[in-house]
Amino acid sequence: MDKKLKLGIIGLGTVGQGVVKVLSPFDDIEIVGAAVKNLSKKRDVEIKCLTDNPFDLANNVDIDVIVEVAGGLGVYDVLKTAIKNKKHIVTANKELLARHGSELFDLARENDVIIMYEAAVAGGIPIIYPIKSSLSANSFSSVAGILNGTTNYILTKMEEDNLSYHDCLLKAQELGYAETDPTGDVEGYDAMYKIAILSNIAFNKRIDIDKIYREGISNISSLDMKLADEFGYKIKLIALSKKMNDLSGNECLDIRVHPMLVSKNKSLADIKNATNAVMLDGFPVGEVMFVGAGAGEFPTASSVVGDILTIKSEFNSNGEILPMTVCHHSDYANQINIEDTINCYYLRIKAANTPGTIGKIGLACGKYNINLSCILQKGVNDDRSATIIVITEECYEKDINLMIKDVEQTSEVRVLNRIRVM
Amino acid sequence: MDKKLKLGIIGLGTVGQGVVKVLSPFDDIEIVGAAVKNLSKKRDVEIKCLTDNPFDLANNVDIDVIVEVAGGLGVYDVLKTAIKNKKHIVTANKELLARHGSELFDLARENDVIIMYEAAVAGGIPIIYPIKSSLSANSFSSVAGILNGTTNYILTKMEEDNLSYHDCLLKAQELGYAETDPTGDVEGYDAMYKIAILSNIAFNKRIDIDKIYREGISNISSLDMKLADEFGYKIKLIALSKKMNDLSGNECLDIRVHPMLVSKNKSLADIKNATNAVMLDGFPVGEVMFVGAGAGEFPTASSVVGDILTIKSEFNSNGEILPMTVCHHSDYANQINIEDTINCYYLRIKAANTPGTIGKIGLACGKYNINLSCILQKGVNDDRSATIIVITEECYEKDINLMIKDVEQTSEVRVLNRIRVM
Repeated sequence: MDKKLKLGIIGLGTVGQGVVKVLSPFDDIEIVGAAVKNLSKKRDVEIKCLTDNPFDLANNVDIDVIVEVAGGLGVYDVLKTAIKNKKHIVTANKELLARHGSELFDLARENDVIIMYEAAVAGGIPIIYPIKSSLSANSFSSVAGILNGTTNYILTKMEEDNLSYHDCLLKAQELGYAETDPTGDVEGYDAMYKIAILSNIAFNKRIDIDKIYREGISNISSLDMKLADEFGYKIKLIALSKKMNDLSGNECLDIRVHPMLVSKNKSLADIKNATNAVMLDGFPVGEVMFVGAGAGEFPTASSVVGDILTIKSEFNSNGEILPMTVCHHSDYANQINIEDTINCYYLRIKAANTPGTIGKIGLACGKYNINLSCILQKGVNDDRSATIIVITEECYEKDINLMIKDVEQTSEVRVLNRIRVM
Repeated sequence: MDKKLKLGIIGLGTVGQGVVKVLSPFDDIEIVGAAVKNLSKKRDVEIKCLTDNPFDLANNVDIDVIVEVAGGLGVYDVLKTAIKNKKHIVTANKELLARHGSELFDLARENDVIIMYEAAVAGGIPIIYPIKSSLSANSFSSVAGILNGTTNYILTKMEEDNLSYHDCLLKAQELGYAETDPTGDVEGYDAMYKIAILSNIAFNKRIDIDKIYREGISNISSLDMKLADEFGYKIKLIALSKKMNDLSGNECLDIRVHPMLVSKNKSLADIKNATNAVMLDGFPVGEVMFVGAGAGEFPTASSVVGDILTIKSEFNSNGEILPMTVCHHSDYANQINIEDTINCYYLRIKAANTPGTIGKIGLACGKYNINLSCILQKGVNDDRSATIIVITEECYEKDINLMIKDVEQTSEVRVLNRIRVM
């Protein structure tokens, strides 16, 4: 008979309870104990040995694998202890991996254990392990995705029900899609951690998350949604990472999270509500897209338990580690500054409806070598001002910023919103 | 230094040459030789040792892995010989796996070697290995997909350019998307092999392909396309496999390939041209979809080389086999007959435009307990006949067949097309 794989679980919140439920039919896996903050809290699942000190698990010689589904940076030292005690790690902790992944992977390599983290990016969607296995022949040129379900839900509602950002945020909070303090989601932090992890494995480089440009969705108005729709776009919070050359011709990574106008012809435009999607572009595979639930008790448990079973399957055969799961790179990526990135831009401009205003905008664009792709003025507002929509061709971010500064020097013109176009 | 992994390649057609090109940067993998039909044919790639006898490779003691990208059933004995000689197999051969997979997997298990076949289903899309690894915690209820690029290209063209099936087939042949004899694609054989393989791994059962119901796309007219569009559907060739209970309450699999009306709200409706997509529904993951190129030199090579690298990565560590890739099931699925499946149906009916015709159709439906979801007659044709479109609610296939027989007994009514609805 196979040896039982013995787990210690850190965190028995929604995901932790999902993991325990999903594991119940697997007789060859035993939960030795779980660490929780509050020992007396009522839970859906029963664990024979609860502790409020996670180090009890990290130091327990009976445990083979630590399953960390608590989240946050507080578990860093616990995981280091567990790794030093030769325990494999399965974690869903995107923030910890994005901030301290390098140190943890180094430590894991030194201790001949592995860290699996399928659930850290895009919940139930298999993406981490497929990149490392089936897609391992590829050299990727870009990774782009809708990696945060909360913001995608809010943007979908804004678009479908023509509601304001704040009304949709409230609705998302009522339904439990958004937290009481929604900052981590709506300001793009969650998506930033995830794109850092994806960039790390797709491009085999260490990523400095402090260099990732990040912008949330709170500036998107339903007017922007409507205007984008007229031009054939939807507005999505896109996490993007692509290879490019910097101004000196050196290879670098352009990594960022911000709202984008996405052409309705692109598959990412069809991703609705809390669904996540990851689009990879590489050679030889071309474009592949993975779509599914990005969060939730059971989808996340699917990935966590998938990782546990993967370890289990290796564990039985010889106790050695899965070579594919070992992180071998130690170089930091050369990450480009947002000012040096190239984009098309949507600009929503409020201008005095006086002769020559459109001319001034056109001249300012010309001054910075920015070509226009579309320009539209639809009638005149009640206050006699005009709303003008401009969509540019590709230009440097620094040039669009200079152009905006320039055009706003005349008191009649204000750029009310600027959104990059995918 | 790691030991080199030594390959023998059977077949140097489009995919075989793609594999050789994609392998070129991998210094730790050596192509010992390749077997081809025609030794003197000009090729894009150079192989030091060519043979026209694939058994030379199967019997070559220097070779660790046989990469079979020739296709067809002719290589069956070669692969058996290779397996008996303890060689791992990487194959893209859907027909062989669908017809003789069980025997090959049994033989591989006896000989402690593995068979990898990511490229056999949906080309470059990672789907086989993700089901076996990241998604291994799941119990699947259904697998559905657009698994044949040729037919999806033809259906997309019919829809977008309002052309006939035959015009679009000719166009697909001109562009190299369809073969001179297109039967394998347009009659659904290719998709049938693939859904058999997917059913096998998703449901852990052996599949008898002779029990898979199969229907091609040659009966789809551009009129059906247009009418489906009016009701909010696209028409796609869908390969489907789902768990259900048969009439005696026993669990069985409903596996089939045929055209379906797919609601525009479903993601599969958005899959265009030669793109493939696989949709899995399971617990705990929910719905996940994988989209990408289903064929072609490089996408297919991505999967073949991914499999080779997966074997290589294990091979280095200890020479043991990947437990996850071993096939353990030996039971045949209980496959349901198409007559006993439950579907909604689209019927395009030609009827004499006489009083009572719609009433007769309605009565016949009532007789077999078939509820109508939509019924539409749009004016009268030039020959005074009427085109009536009916979409039913769910009913047994045998009942819709009886109803059609019944209604056609009156000379005024002919059911010109019947398409199942997804």
